[in-house]
Amino acid sequence: MEVMMRPIGVIHSPFSEVEQTPIQAARSQALGQVEIFPEFLEGLEGLEGFSHIYLLYVFHASTSYDLRVQPFLDDHTHGLFATRHPCRPNPIGLSVVRLLGLKHGLLEIQGVDVLDGTPLLDIKPYVPDFDLRTEVRAGWYEKRSKP
Amino acid sequence: MEVMMRPIGVIHSPFSEVEQTPIQAARSQALGQVEIFPEFLEGLEGLEGFSHIYLLYVFHASTSYDLRVQPFLDDHTHGLFATRHPCRPNPIGLSVVRLLGLKHGLLEIQGVDVLDGTPLLDIKPYVPDFDLRTEVRAGWYEKRSKP
Repeated sequence: MEVMMRPIGVIHSPFSEVEQTPIQAARSQALGQVEIFPEFLEGLEGLEGFSHIYLLYVFHASTSYDLRVQPFLDDHTHGLFATRHPCRPNPIGLSVVRLLGLKHGLLEIQGVDVLDGTPLLDIKPYVPDFDLRTEVRAGWYEKRSKP
Repeated sequence: MEVMMRPIGVIHSPFSEVEQTPIQAARSQALGQVEIFPEFLEGLEGLEGFSHIYLLYVFHASTSYDLRVQPFLDDHTHGLFATRHPCRPNPIGLSVVRLLGLKHGLLEIQGVDVLDGTPLLDIKPYVPDFDLRTEVRAGWYEKRSKP
């Protein structure tokens, strides 16, 4: 089975190089914009009522993957699926960002952690009832070697 | 630009019909299993340290989409991207589930809200520092017509 994905927009960020890009949206205050292609604009109605949204996008700079990786935040290797490493069998990235505003099909966002020009696949509203989990164990991340 | 995705596994759930399937993982106590294809098993190392994981999967029963939809939980229509409706331009589903155990490439999970046989695209660890947001506004969902 194969599923073909096509971008619905582009994420604009201050980061043109992988090395500059923050590790995870929650650690970034950077501002960015999400441009939605005209044929999808109608689907944004009501999104401005949400303070946070998920961006699902393509890790377009990733070309191959290893099943064991060393995350940016640790000195040890871990299984790829136990990390958020960008090089994955299906190179889908996931970030929660703050939605500051929405004008003429441009979403103003804060907390960007992706490369400028990242192809956007989907937007979903962040709904605490669905997405917020407390009393969570976070494996190697809790014992990681870098803050 | 087109990106080809191929499943890395299959999600097994008690739900063989769309009508039986719970609305959102957080509202479900249902048990399920995630089967990872043998060639990807090495990538699971260390995942068992995480109590919660994101599943990214294909909404394989969805065939087309509308940019305005009426969510299951409301009587009003909203823009598609302001909802978690399964029929989307790129039919990627996202659920946070509890990881109960991991044995021989089978993940035992709780809080399943997908159809049996759903193709899995990716697994990511749920990391509170990245994914947990408080002081969130949830737009129409806060004023929805169904509990």
